[in-house]
Amino acid sequence: MKVIRTIEELRAEIRNRRSKEASPVGLVPTMGYLHEGHASLMQRAREMTGTVVLSIFVNPIQFGPGEDFETYPRDEERDLAVAESNGVDIVFIPDVSEMYPQPTKTKVAVSELTSLLCGASRPGHFDGVTTVVNKLFNIVKPDFAFFGMKDAQQVAVIEQMVRDLNIDVEIVPCPIVREADGLALSSRNVYLKPEEREQALVLSKSLQTALEQLENGSVTTAGEVRTLLNNIISEAPIADIDYAEVLTFPELKPIDNETKVSDTGSAVILALAVRFGRTRLIDNVLFQLKEGISHV
Amino acid sequence: MKVIRTIEELRAEIRNRRSKEASPVGLVPTMGYLHEGHASLMQRAREMTGTVVLSIFVNPIQFGPGEDFETYPRDEERDLAVAESNGVDIVFIPDVSEMYPQPTKTKVAVSELTSLLCGASRPGHFDGVTTVVNKLFNIVKPDFAFFGMKDAQQVAVIEQMVRDLNIDVEIVPCPIVREADGLALSSRNVYLKPEEREQALVLSKSLQTALEQLENGSVTTAGEVRTLLNNIISEAPIADIDYAEVLTFPELKPIDNETKVSDTGSAVILALAVRFGRTRLIDNVLFQLKEGISHV
Repeated sequence: MKVIRTIEELRAEIRNRRSKEASPVGLVPTMGYLHEGHASLMQRAREMTGTVVLSIFVNPIQFGPGEDFETYPRDEERDLAVAESNGVDIVFIPDVSEMYPQPTKTKVAVSELTSLLCGASRPGHFDGVTTVVNKLFNIVKPDFAFFGMKDAQQVAVIEQMVRDLNIDVEIVPCPIVREADGLALSSRNVYLKPEEREQALVLSKSLQTALEQLENGSVTTAGEVRTLLNNIISEAPIADIDYAEVLTFPELKPIDNETKVSDTGSAVILALAVRFGRTRLIDNVLFQLKEGISHV
Repeated sequence: MKVIRTIEELRAEIRNRRSKEASPVGLVPTMGYLHEGHASLMQRAREMTGTVVLSIFVNPIQFGPGEDFETYPRDEERDLAVAESNGVDIVFIPDVSEMYPQPTKTKVAVSELTSLLCGASRPGHFDGVTTVVNKLFNIVKPDFAFFGMKDAQQVAVIEQMVRDLNIDVEIVPCPIVREADGLALSSRNVYLKPEEREQALVLSKSLQTALEQLENGSVTTAGEVRTLLNNIISEAPIADIDYAEVLTFPELKPIDNETKVSDTGSAVILALAVRFGRTRLIDNVLFQLKEGISHV
Protein backbone atom coordinates (compact mmCIF):
# COMPACT_ATOMS: atom_id res chain seq x y z
CA MET A 1 0.00 0.00 0.00
CA LYS A 2 1.34 3.43 -0.98
CA VAL A 3 0.70 6.52 1.09
CA ILE A 4 0.73 9.61 -1.14
CA ARG A 5 0.38 13.22 -0.06
CA THR A 6 0.69 15.22 -3.29
CA ILE A 7 -1.55 15.45 -6.34
CA GLU A 8 1.38 15.18 -8.72
CA GLU A 9 2.67 11.99 -7.17
CA LEU A 10 -0.81 10.48 -7.06
CA ARG A 11 -1.39 11.24 -10.75
CA ALA A 12 1.96 9.67 -11.66
CA GLU A 13 1.23 6.55 -9.62
CA ILE A 14 -2.23 6.06 -11.14
CA ARG A 15 -0.90 6.72 -14.65
CA ASN A 16 1.79 4.15 -14.01
CA ARG A 17 -0.69 1.53 -12.78
CA ARG A 18 -3.05 2.22 -15.68
CA SER A 19 -0.23 1.77 -18.18
CA LYS A 20 0.50 -1.68 -16.73
CA GLU A 21 -3.00 -3.08 -16.40
CA ALA A 22 -6.30 -2.26 -18.03
CA SER A 23 -8.38 -2.92 -14.91
CA PRO A 24 -10.56 -0.13 -13.53
CA VAL A 25 -9.67 2.35 -10.79
CA GLY A 26 -11.95 2.75 -7.77
CA LEU A 27 -12.07 5.77 -5.47
CA VAL A 28 -13.34 5.74 -1.89
CA PRO A 29 -13.48 9.39 -0.76
CA THR A 30 -13.54 9.79 3.04
CA MET A 31 -12.77 12.24 5.80
CA GLY A 32 -10.90 9.53 7.70
CA TYR A 33 -11.45 8.27 11.25
CA LEU A 34 -12.42 5.11 9.45
CA HIS A 35 -15.01 2.65 10.73
CA GLU A 36 -16.69 -0.50 9.44
CA GLY A 37 -18.89 1.59 7.14
CA HIS A 38 -15.80 2.87 5.35
CA ALA A 39 -14.33 -0.64 5.40
CA SER A 40 -17.38 -1.92 3.54
CA LEU A 41 -16.75 0.68 0.82
CA MET A 42 -13.12 -0.40 0.50
CA GLN A 43 -14.18 -4.04 0.29
CA ARG A 44 -16.71 -3.29 -2.43
CA ALA A 45 -14.06 -1.29 -4.32
CA ARG A 46 -11.62 -4.20 -3.90
CA GLU A 47 -14.17 -6.57 -5.47
CA MET A 48 -14.95 -4.29 -8.42
CA THR A 49 -11.64 -2.67 -9.35
CA GLY A 50 -7.95 -3.38 -9.88
CA THR A 51 -6.68 -0.23 -8.17
CA VAL A 52 -8.35 0.95 -4.97
CA VAL A 53 -7.64 4.56 -4.01
CA LEU A 54 -8.77 5.72 -0.58
CA SER A 55 -8.72 9.47 -0.03
CA ILE A 56 -8.62 10.88 3.48
CA PHE A 57 -9.26 14.61 3.59
CA VAL A 58 -11.20 16.64 6.11
CA ASN A 59 -12.47 19.21 3.63
CA PRO A 60 -12.70 22.65 5.25
CA ILE A 61 -15.07 24.16 2.68
CA GLN A 62 -17.89 21.74 3.51
CA PHE A 63 -17.95 22.86 7.16
CA GLY A 64 -19.88 25.97 8.12
CA PRO A 65 -18.80 28.53 10.70
CA GLY A 66 -19.34 27.03 14.15
CA GLU A 67 -19.30 23.47 12.82
CA ASP A 68 -16.73 20.89 13.86
CA PHE A 69 -13.97 21.28 11.25
CA GLU A 70 -11.27 21.88 13.86
CA THR A 71 -12.42 19.15 16.22
CA TYR A 72 -13.44 16.56 13.63
CA PRO A 73 -11.76 13.35 14.82
CA ARG A 74 -8.50 12.41 13.09
CA ASP A 75 -6.26 9.35 13.57
CA GLU A 76 -3.95 8.82 10.65
CA GLU A 77 -2.07 5.87 12.07
CA ARG A 78 -5.19 3.87 12.77
CA ASP A 79 -6.71 4.88 9.41
CA LEU A 80 -3.67 3.58 7.53
CA ALA A 81 -3.93 0.26 9.36
CA VAL A 82 -7.63 -0.03 8.48
CA ALA A 83 -6.86 0.80 4.84
CA GLU A 84 -4.06 -1.74 4.68
CA SER A 85 -6.15 -4.51 6.17
CA ASN A 86 -8.96 -3.84 3.70
CA GLY A 87 -6.77 -4.18 0.62
CA VAL A 88 -6.39 -0.53 -0.36
CA ASP A 89 -3.64 0.08 -2.94
CA ILE A 90 -3.15 3.82 -2.55
CA VAL A 91 -4.06 6.14 0.33
CA PHE A 92 -4.21 9.76 -0.77
CA ILE A 93 -3.92 11.97 2.29
CA PRO A 94 -3.21 15.55 1.20
CA ASP A 95 -3.09 18.48 3.55
CA VAL A 96 -5.30 21.52 3.09
CA SER A 97 -2.64 23.55 1.28
CA GLU A 98 -2.23 20.77 -1.29
CA MET A 99 -5.94 20.73 -2.10
CA TYR A 100 -6.42 24.50 -1.76
CA PRO A 101 -3.08 26.25 -2.47
CA GLN A 102 -5.21 29.37 -2.89
CA PRO A 103 -8.76 29.81 -1.59
CA THR A 104 -10.87 28.35 -4.38
CA LYS A 105 -12.73 30.87 -6.56
CA THR A 106 -14.51 27.99 -8.31
CA LYS A 107 -17.51 26.22 -6.83
CA VAL A 108 -19.54 23.33 -8.17
CA ALA A 109 -23.10 23.70 -6.92
CA VAL A 110 -26.18 21.50 -7.31
CA SER A 111 -29.49 23.31 -6.82
CA GLU A 112 -32.90 22.01 -5.65
CA LEU A 113 -31.67 18.72 -4.15
CA THR A 114 -29.50 20.73 -1.75
CA SER A 115 -32.17 23.15 -0.56
CA LEU A 116 -33.70 20.79 2.00
CA LEU A 117 -32.72 18.22 4.68
CA CYS A 118 -29.02 18.67 5.56
CA GLY A 119 -28.72 21.37 2.90
CA ALA A 120 -31.20 23.55 4.79
CA SER A 121 -29.48 23.00 8.15
CA ARG A 122 -25.95 23.38 6.77
CA PRO A 123 -25.86 26.22 4.20
CA GLY A 124 -23.00 25.80 1.72
CA HIS A 125 -22.23 22.28 2.96
CA PHE A 126 -23.13 20.51 -0.27
CA ASP A 127 -21.34 23.08 -2.45
CA GLY A 128 -18.24 22.19 -0.46
CA VAL A 129 -18.90 18.48 -0.97
CA THR A 130 -19.56 18.67 -4.72
CA THR A 131 -16.55 20.94 -5.23
CA VAL A 132 -14.11 18.66 -3.43
CA VAL A 133 -15.55 15.49 -4.96
CA ASN A 134 -15.24 17.11 -8.39
CA LYS A 135 -11.59 17.89 -7.61
CA LEU A 136 -10.95 14.32 -6.44
CA PHE A 137 -12.60 12.93 -9.57
CA ASN A 138 -10.37 15.16 -11.73
CA ILE A 139 -7.26 14.09 -9.82
CA VAL A 140 -7.94 10.32 -9.63
CA LYS A 141 -10.12 9.89 -12.75
CA PRO A 142 -11.76 6.82 -11.21
CA ASP A 143 -13.98 4.44 -13.14
CA PHE A 144 -16.03 3.79 -9.99
CA ALA A 145 -16.54 5.84 -6.85
CA PHE A 146 -17.99 4.42 -3.65
CA PHE A 147 -20.23 6.30 -1.23
CA GLY A 148 -22.13 5.18 1.86
CA MET A 149 -25.89 5.43 1.87
CA LYS A 150 -25.89 6.88 5.38
CA ASP A 151 -25.30 10.16 3.56
CA ALA A 152 -28.17 9.44 1.18
CA GLN A 153 -28.67 13.06 0.23
CA GLN A 154 -24.97 13.29 -0.60
CA VAL A 155 -25.35 10.28 -2.89
CA ALA A 156 -28.33 11.88 -4.66
CA VAL A 157 -26.48 15.20 -5.04
CA ILE A 158 -23.30 13.59 -6.37
CA GLU A 159 -25.24 11.42 -8.82
CA GLN A 160 -26.96 14.59 -10.05
CA MET A 161 -23.59 16.33 -10.48
CA VAL A 162 -22.15 13.35 -12.36
CA ARG A 163 -25.13 13.27 -14.72
CA ASP A 164 -25.30 17.04 -15.29
CA LEU A 165 -21.55 17.48 -15.87
CA ASN A 166 -21.09 14.26 -17.90
CA ILE A 167 -18.45 12.98 -15.51
CA ASP A 168 -17.25 9.60 -16.71
CA VAL A 169 -17.54 7.74 -13.42
CA GLU A 170 -20.02 5.24 -12.03
CA ILE A 171 -21.25 6.02 -8.53
CA VAL A 172 -21.65 2.90 -6.38
CA PRO A 173 -23.87 3.55 -3.35
CA CYS A 174 -23.20 1.09 -0.52
CA PRO A 175 -25.57 0.05 2.30
CA ILE A 176 -25.48 1.60 5.76
CA VAL A 177 -23.43 -0.39 8.26
CA ARG A 178 -24.86 -0.53 11.81
CA GLU A 179 -23.74 -1.49 15.28
CA ALA A 180 -25.36 -4.66 16.63
CA ASP A 181 -27.95 -2.52 18.44
CA GLY A 182 -28.88 -0.63 15.26
CA LEU A 183 -26.91 2.63 15.55
CA ALA A 184 -25.61 3.64 12.12
CA LEU A 185 -21.83 3.89 12.08
CA SER A 186 -20.47 7.43 11.93
CA SER A 187 -17.12 8.99 12.72
CA ARG A 188 -19.08 11.45 14.84
CA ASN A 189 -20.41 8.67 17.14
CA VAL A 190 -17.16 9.14 19.08
CA TYR A 191 -18.56 12.44 20.33
CA LEU A 192 -21.50 10.75 22.09
CA LYS A 193 -21.60 10.56 25.88
CA PRO A 194 -22.99 7.27 27.23
CA GLU A 195 -26.47 8.67 27.80
CA GLU A 196 -26.53 10.22 24.34
CA ARG A 197 -25.28 7.00 22.78
CA GLU A 198 -28.13 5.10 24.42
CA GLN A 199 -30.81 7.54 23.43
CA ALA A 200 -29.47 7.74 19.86
CA LEU A 201 -30.95 4.28 19.31
CA VAL A 202 -34.32 5.97 18.70
CA LEU A 203 -33.05 6.83 15.22
CA SER A 204 -32.81 3.30 13.88
CA LYS A 205 -35.73 2.19 16.06
CA SER A 206 -38.06 4.83 14.63
CA LEU A 207 -37.05 4.01 11.06
CA GLN A 208 -37.47 0.28 11.61
CA THR A 209 -40.87 0.73 13.28
CA ALA A 210 -42.10 3.04 10.50
CA LEU A 211 -41.01 0.52 7.90
CA GLU A 212 -42.81 -2.33 9.69
CA GLN A 213 -45.99 -0.33 10.13
CA LEU A 214 -45.96 0.71 6.46
CA GLU A 215 -45.49 -2.95 5.59
CA ASN A 216 -48.37 -4.20 7.70
CA GLY A 217 -50.62 -1.26 6.83
CA SER A 218 -50.82 0.30 10.32
CA VAL A 219 -49.70 3.57 8.71
CA THR A 220 -50.15 4.48 5.07
CA THR A 221 -49.80 8.24 4.48
CA ALA A 222 -46.61 10.28 4.62
CA GLY A 223 -48.19 12.40 7.36
CA GLU A 224 -48.77 9.32 9.51
CA VAL A 225 -45.16 8.27 8.98
CA ARG A 226 -43.89 11.73 9.97
CA THR A 227 -46.00 11.64 13.14
CA LEU A 228 -44.81 8.13 13.99
CA LEU A 229 -41.13 9.07 13.49
CA ASN A 230 -41.50 12.22 15.58
CA ASN A 231 -43.32 10.36 18.35
CA ILE A 232 -40.75 7.60 18.65
CA ILE A 233 -37.78 9.97 18.51
CA SER A 234 -39.38 12.20 21.12
CA GLU A 235 -39.38 9.27 23.55
CA ALA A 236 -35.68 10.13 23.97
CA PRO A 237 -35.76 13.18 26.26
CA ILE A 238 -32.58 14.77 24.91
CA ALA A 239 -33.32 14.15 21.23
CA ASP A 240 -33.62 17.47 19.37
CA ILE A 241 -35.11 16.83 15.95
CA ASP A 242 -33.69 18.74 12.99
CA TYR A 243 -35.83 16.90 10.44
CA ALA A 244 -37.79 13.66 10.08
CA GLU A 245 -38.79 13.53 6.44
CA VAL A 246 -40.50 11.28 3.91
CA LEU A 247 -39.35 11.85 0.33
CA THR A 248 -38.97 10.24 -3.05
CA PHE A 249 -35.45 9.10 -3.92
CA PRO A 250 -33.26 10.19 -5.62
CA GLU A 251 -35.39 13.23 -6.54
CA LEU A 252 -35.77 14.19 -2.87
CA LYS A 253 -39.29 15.52 -3.34
CA PRO A 254 -41.14 15.58 0.00
CA ILE A 255 -44.29 13.45 -0.12
CA ASP A 256 -47.46 15.32 0.91
CA ASN A 257 -48.90 14.45 4.30
CA GLU A 258 -52.14 13.25 2.67
CA THR A 259 -50.46 11.03 0.09
CA LYS A 260 -50.18 7.31 0.64
CA VAL A 261 -46.52 6.37 0.57
CA SER A 262 -47.36 3.36 -1.59
CA ASP A 263 -48.95 5.65 -4.19
CA THR A 264 -45.75 7.46 -5.10
CA GLY A 265 -44.65 4.63 -7.39
CA SER A 266 -41.01 5.45 -6.75
CA ALA A 267 -38.33 4.63 -4.23
CA VAL A 268 -39.00 6.33 -0.90
CA ILE A 269 -36.58 7.45 1.78
CA LEU A 270 -37.27 8.14 5.45
CA ALA A 271 -34.53 10.55 6.49
CA LEU A 272 -33.64 11.79 9.96
CA ALA A 273 -31.30 14.35 11.47
CA VAL A 274 -31.39 14.62 15.25
CA ARG A 275 -29.14 16.33 17.77
CA PHE A 276 -28.07 14.53 20.92
CA GLY A 277 -26.31 17.11 23.02
CA ARG A 278 -23.84 18.81 20.69
CA THR A 279 -23.73 15.92 18.24
CA ARG A 280 -25.93 15.88 15.15
CA LEU A 281 -26.62 12.39 13.82
CA ILE A 282 -28.30 11.33 10.60
CA ASP A 283 -29.91 8.07 9.56
CA ASN A 284 -32.27 6.86 6.88
CA VAL A 285 -33.96 3.90 5.28
CA LEU A 286 -34.61 3.57 1.56
CA PHE A 287 -37.27 1.24 0.17
CA GLN A 288 -39.74 0.64 -2.62
CA LEU A 289 -43.33 -0.06 -1.58
CA LYS A 290 -45.19 -2.42 -3.91
CA GLU A 291 -46.92 -5.51 -2.69
CA GLY A 292 -45.05 -5.59 0.55
CA ILE A 293 -41.78 -3.76 0.97
CA SER A 294 -38.61 -4.43 -0.92
CA HIS A 295 -35.51 -2.76 0.38
CA VAL A 296 -33.53 -0.93 -2.28
CA MET B 1 -13.15 13.80 -40.67
CA LYS B 2 -15.96 12.33 -38.55
CA VAL B 3 -19.08 14.28 -37.69
CA ILE B 4 -20.50 13.06 -34.40
CA ARG B 5 -23.71 14.19 -32.71
CA THR B 6 -23.93 12.07 -29.56
CA ILE B 7 -21.79 11.97 -26.42
CA GLU B 8 -21.71 8.19 -26.40
CA GLU B 9 -20.43 7.96 -29.96
CA LEU B 10 -17.85 10.69 -29.34
CA ARG B 11 -16.53 8.92 -26.25
CA ALA B 12 -16.26 5.63 -28.15
CA GLU B 13 -14.41 7.29 -31.05
CA ILE B 14 -11.92 9.06 -28.77
CA ARG B 15 -11.37 5.89 -26.72
CA ASN B 16 -10.75 4.02 -29.94
CA ARG B 17 -8.24 6.58 -31.21
CA ARG B 18 -6.47 6.70 -27.83
CA SER B 19 -6.13 2.92 -27.79
CA LYS B 20 -4.39 3.04 -31.18
CA GLU B 21 -1.98 5.93 -30.63
CA ALA B 22 -0.54 7.60 -27.57
CA SER B 23 -0.59 11.11 -29.05
CA PRO B 24 -2.52 13.82 -27.21
CA VAL B 25 -6.09 14.94 -27.84
CA GLY B 26 -6.86 18.61 -28.52
CA LEU B 27 -10.24 20.28 -28.08
CA VAL B 28 -11.34 23.48 -29.82
CA PRO B 29 -14.67 24.48 -28.25
CA THR B 30 -16.71 26.87 -30.42
CA MET B 31 -20.22 28.08 -31.04
CA GLY B 32 -19.72 27.64 -34.81
CA TYR B 33 -20.12 30.18 -37.61
CA LEU B 34 -16.41 29.68 -37.94
CA HIS B 35 -14.00 32.36 -39.07
CA GLU B 36 -10.23 32.70 -39.42
CA GLY B 37 -9.90 33.17 -35.65
CA HIS B 38 -11.39 29.70 -35.12
CA ALA B 39 -9.24 28.38 -37.97
CA SER B 40 -6.12 29.57 -36.16
CA LEU B 41 -7.18 27.55 -33.10
CA MET B 42 -7.68 24.42 -35.22
CA GLN B 43 -4.29 24.93 -36.83
CA ARG B 44 -2.59 25.29 -33.46
CA ALA B 45 -4.38 22.15 -32.24
CA ARG B 46 -3.29 20.33 -35.40
CA GLU B 47 0.35 21.25 -34.69
CA MET B 48 0.22 20.19 -31.03
CA THR B 49 -2.00 17.09 -30.95
CA GLY B 50 -2.70 13.84 -32.74
CA THR B 51 -6.48 14.03 -32.49
CA VAL B 52 -8.20 17.38 -33.04
CA VAL B 53 -11.77 17.60 -31.79
CA LEU B 54 -13.80 20.67 -32.77
CA SER B 55 -17.02 21.18 -30.85
CA ILE B 56 -19.78 23.34 -32.29
CA PHE B 57 -22.51 24.10 -29.78
CA VAL B 58 -24.48 27.30 -29.27
CA ASN B 59 -24.83 26.91 -25.53
CA PRO B 60 -28.19 28.27 -24.35
CA ILE B 61 -27.23 28.65 -20.68
CA GLN B 62 -24.55 31.26 -21.41
CA PHE B 63 -27.08 33.59 -23.04
CA GLY B 64 -29.17 35.88 -20.87
CA PRO B 65 -32.82 36.77 -21.46
CA GLY B 66 -32.99 39.24 -24.36
CA GLU B 67 -29.59 38.17 -25.70
CA ASP B 68 -29.09 36.65 -29.14
CA PHE B 69 -29.32 32.88 -28.49
CA GLU B 70 -32.12 32.40 -31.02
CA THR B 71 -30.58 34.58 -33.70
CA TYR B 72 -26.92 33.67 -33.14
CA PRO B 73 -25.62 32.89 -36.66
CA ARG B 74 -25.43 29.22 -37.60
CA ASP B 75 -24.16 27.58 -40.81
CA GLU B 76 -23.37 23.91 -40.29
CA GLU B 77 -22.48 23.14 -43.91
CA ARG B 78 -19.92 25.92 -44.15
CA ASP B 79 -18.55 25.12 -40.67
CA LEU B 80 -17.91 21.50 -41.65
CA ALA B 81 -16.03 22.64 -44.75
CA VAL B 82 -13.88 25.00 -42.65
CA ALA B 83 -13.16 22.22 -40.15
CA GLU B 84 -12.26 19.77 -42.89
CA SER B 85 -9.90 22.19 -44.59
CA ASN B 86 -8.14 22.92 -41.28
CA GLY B 87 -7.36 19.28 -40.54
CA VAL B 88 -9.95 18.59 -37.82
CA ASP B 89 -10.38 14.87 -37.06
CA ILE B 90 -13.71 14.93 -35.23
CA VAL B 91 -16.47 17.53 -35.27
CA PHE B 92 -18.77 17.18 -32.26
CA ILE B 93 -22.02 18.95 -33.01
CA PRO B 94 -24.63 17.92 -30.44
CA ASP B 95 -28.08 19.41 -30.23
CA VAL B 96 -29.34 21.06 -27.04
CA SER B 97 -31.22 17.94 -25.86
CA GLU B 98 -28.01 15.90 -26.08
CA MET B 99 -26.08 18.33 -23.88
CA TYR B 100 -29.03 19.13 -21.58
CA PRO B 101 -31.45 16.16 -21.60
CA GLN B 102 -32.83 17.75 -18.43
CA PRO B 103 -32.32 21.36 -17.37
CA THR B 104 -29.02 21.24 -15.49
CA LYS B 105 -29.25 21.51 -11.70
CA THR B 106 -25.44 21.69 -11.50
CA LYS B 107 -23.49 24.85 -12.18
CA VAL B 108 -19.78 25.48 -12.14
CA ALA B 109 -19.18 29.07 -11.10
CA VAL B 110 -16.00 31.14 -10.78
CA SER B 111 -16.29 34.15 -8.48
CA GLU B 112 -14.40 37.49 -8.46
CA LEU B 113 -12.99 37.25 -12.02
CA THR B 114 -16.56 37.13 -13.32
CA SER B 115 -17.93 40.09 -11.39
CA LEU B 116 -16.61 42.75 -13.77
CA LEU B 117 -16.21 43.46 -17.51
CA CYS B 118 -18.49 41.12 -19.51
CA GLY B 119 -19.54 39.40 -16.28
CA ALA B 120 -21.09 42.65 -15.01
CA SER B 121 -22.90 43.31 -18.30
CA ARG B 122 -24.02 39.72 -18.81
CA PRO B 123 -25.10 38.23 -15.45
CA GLY B 124 -24.81 34.43 -15.43
CA HIS B 125 -22.93 34.37 -18.72
CA PHE B 126 -19.68 33.00 -17.32
CA ASP B 127 -21.46 30.39 -15.17
CA GLY B 128 -22.93 29.12 -18.43
CA VAL B 129 -19.50 29.12 -20.07
CA THR B 130 -17.67 27.35 -17.23
CA THR B 131 -20.46 24.80 -16.88
CA VAL B 132 -20.49 23.84 -20.57
CA VAL B 133 -16.69 23.87 -20.85
CA ASN B 134 -16.53 21.62 -17.80
CA LYS B 135 -19.01 19.24 -19.50
CA LEU B 136 -16.99 19.27 -22.74
CA PHE B 137 -13.79 18.57 -20.80
CA ASN B 138 -15.48 15.62 -19.07
CA ILE B 139 -16.77 14.27 -22.38
CA VAL B 140 -13.62 14.72 -24.51
CA LYS B 141 -10.94 14.50 -21.77
CA PRO B 142 -8.57 16.58 -23.88
CA ASP B 143 -4.89 17.02 -23.09
CA PHE B 144 -4.98 20.53 -24.57
CA ALA B 145 -7.84 22.96 -25.10
CA PHE B 146 -7.56 25.99 -27.37
CA PHE B 147 -9.25 29.34 -26.74
CA GLY B 148 -8.99 32.66 -28.56
CA MET B 149 -7.66 35.66 -26.67
CA LYS B 150 -10.39 37.89 -28.07
CA ASP B 151 -12.39 36.50 -25.15
CA ALA B 152 -9.55 37.27 -22.74
CA GLN B 153 -11.78 37.27 -19.67
CA GLN B 154 -13.09 33.86 -20.68
CA VAL B 155 -9.51 32.58 -20.88
CA ALA B 156 -8.74 33.94 -17.40
CA VAL B 157 -11.94 32.42 -15.99
CA ILE B 158 -11.37 29.02 -17.56
CA GLU B 159 -7.75 28.92 -16.42
CA GLN B 160 -8.97 29.69 -12.90
CA MET B 161 -11.52 26.86 -13.11
CA VAL B 162 -8.91 24.42 -14.38
CA ARG B 163 -6.54 25.30 -11.54
CA ASP B 164 -9.18 25.31 -8.79
CA LEU B 165 -10.81 22.03 -9.87
CA ASN B 166 -7.53 20.24 -10.75
CA ILE B 167 -8.71 19.56 -14.28
CA ASP B 168 -5.99 17.68 -16.12
CA VAL B 169 -5.90 19.83 -19.26
CA GLU B 170 -3.56 22.51 -20.53
CA ILE B 171 -5.26 25.66 -21.76
CA VAL B 172 -3.62 27.12 -24.86
CA PRO B 173 -4.61 30.77 -25.40
CA CYS B 174 -4.24 31.83 -29.05
CA PRO B 175 -3.73 35.37 -30.40
CA ILE B 176 -6.59 37.51 -31.71
CA VAL B 177 -7.00 37.32 -35.48
CA ARG B 178 -7.94 40.61 -37.20
CA GLU B 179 -9.22 41.81 -40.56
CA ALA B 180 -6.69 43.75 -42.63
CA ASP B 181 -8.13 47.01 -41.28
CA GLY B 182 -7.79 45.88 -37.66
CA LEU B 183 -11.29 44.69 -36.74
CA ALA B 184 -11.04 41.63 -34.50
CA LEU B 185 -12.78 38.64 -36.06
CA SER B 186 -16.06 37.66 -34.42
CA SER B 187 -19.04 35.60 -35.52
CA ARG B 188 -21.14 38.57 -34.46
CA ASN B 189 -19.46 40.88 -37.03
CA VAL B 190 -22.03 39.53 -39.49
CA TYR B 191 -24.66 41.58 -37.63
CA LEU B 192 -22.92 44.90 -38.45
CA LYS B 193 -24.47 47.29 -40.97
CA PRO B 194 -21.91 49.04 -43.24
CA GLU B 195 -21.85 52.21 -41.14
CA GLU B 196 -21.46 50.21 -37.92
CA ARG B 197 -18.71 48.08 -39.49
CA GLU B 198 -16.80 51.23 -40.39
CA GLN B 199 -17.17 52.89 -37.00
CA ALA B 200 -16.23 49.64 -35.20
CA LEU B 201 -12.64 50.29 -36.30
CA VAL B 202 -12.31 52.66 -33.33
CA LEU B 203 -11.92 49.56 -31.14
CA SER B 204 -8.61 48.37 -32.54
CA LYS B 205 -7.55 51.94 -33.30
CA SER B 206 -8.02 53.05 -29.69
CA LEU B 207 -6.15 50.02 -28.36
CA GLN B 208 -3.29 50.51 -30.81
CA THR B 209 -3.03 54.22 -30.03
CA ALA B 210 -3.06 53.62 -26.28
CA LEU B 211 -0.33 51.04 -26.66
CA GLU B 212 1.82 53.40 -28.74
CA GLN B 213 1.35 56.28 -26.33
CA LEU B 214 2.22 54.06 -23.35
CA GLU B 215 5.28 52.97 -25.27
CA ASN B 216 6.49 56.49 -26.06
CA GLY B 217 5.48 57.87 -22.68
CA SER B 218 2.73 60.26 -23.86
CA VAL B 219 0.43 58.56 -21.34
CA THR B 220 1.57 56.74 -18.22
CA THR B 221 -1.26 56.29 -15.69
CA ALA B 222 -4.24 53.97 -16.00
CA GLY B 223 -6.52 57.01 -15.74
CA GLU B 224 -4.85 58.61 -18.75
CA VAL B 225 -5.25 55.39 -20.69
CA ARG B 226 -8.94 55.19 -19.80
CA THR B 227 -9.45 58.79 -20.93
CA LEU B 228 -7.60 58.15 -24.16
CA LEU B 229 -9.58 55.01 -24.95
CA ASN B 230 -12.87 56.75 -24.19
CA ASN B 231 -11.93 59.79 -26.29
CA ILE B 232 -10.95 57.81 -29.35
CA ILE B 233 -13.96 55.50 -29.16
CA SER B 234 -16.26 58.49 -28.74
CA GLU B 235 -15.08 59.81 -32.11
CA ALA B 236 -17.44 57.20 -33.54
CA PRO B 237 -20.87 58.83 -33.12
CA ILE B 238 -22.82 55.57 -32.74
CA ALA B 239 -20.33 53.87 -30.40
CA ASP B 240 -21.99 53.16 -27.04
CA ILE B 241 -19.29 52.21 -24.54
CA ASP B 242 -20.04 49.36 -22.11
CA TYR B 243 -16.53 49.39 -20.63
CA ALA B 244 -13.00 50.52 -21.48
CA GLU B 245 -10.83 49.07 -18.74
CA VAL B 246 -7.19 48.77 -17.73
CA LEU B 247 -6.48 45.70 -15.60
CA THR B 248 -3.82 43.23 -14.58
CA PHE B 249 -3.99 39.87 -16.33
CA PRO B 250 -4.94 37.14 -15.56
CA GLU B 251 -6.04 38.44 -12.12
CA LEU B 252 -8.33 41.04 -13.74
CA LYS B 253 -7.71 43.59 -11.01
CA PRO B 254 -8.56 47.12 -12.27
CA ILE B 255 -5.51 49.40 -12.04
CA ASP B 256 -6.17 52.65 -10.12
CA ASN B 257 -6.45 55.82 -12.19
CA GLU B 258 -3.44 57.30 -10.40
CA THR B 259 -1.19 54.28 -10.85
CA LYS B 260 1.39 54.22 -13.62
CA VAL B 261 0.66 51.22 -15.84
CA SER B 262 4.38 50.41 -15.90
CA ASP B 263 4.41 50.20 -12.08
CA THR B 264 2.08 47.20 -11.86
CA GLY B 265 4.92 44.79 -12.64
CA SER B 266 2.50 42.33 -14.20
CA ALA B 267 0.89 41.70 -17.55
CA VAL B 268 -1.70 44.37 -18.34
CA ILE B 269 -4.81 44.16 -20.48
CA LEU B 270 -6.76 46.99 -22.09
CA ALA B 271 -10.26 45.58 -22.56
CA LEU B 272 -13.19 47.09 -24.44
CA ALA B 273 -16.85 46.31 -24.92
CA VAL B 274 -18.77 48.71 -27.13
CA ARG B 275 -22.19 48.58 -28.74
CA PHE B 276 -22.65 49.58 -32.39
CA GLY B 277 -26.38 49.62 -32.96
CA ARG B 278 -27.66 46.33 -31.57
CA THR B 279 -24.29 44.59 -31.79
CA ARG B 280 -21.96 44.42 -28.82
CA LEU B 281 -18.31 43.95 -29.79
CA ILE B 282 -15.30 43.25 -27.58
CA ASP B 283 -11.60 43.69 -28.18
CA ASN B 284 -8.44 43.86 -26.10
CA VAL B 285 -4.69 44.04 -26.12
CA LEU B 286 -2.44 42.27 -23.62
CA PHE B 287 1.12 43.41 -22.94
CA GLN B 288 3.88 43.60 -20.38
CA LEU B 289 5.42 47.06 -19.83
CA LYS B 290 9.10 46.99 -18.91
CA GLU B 291 11.67 48.95 -20.78
CA GLY B 292 9.48 49.44 -23.77
CA ILE B 293 6.51 47.22 -24.45
CA SER B 294 6.64 43.52 -25.10
CA HIS B 295 3.44 41.95 -26.34
CA VAL B 296 2.42 38.88 -24.43
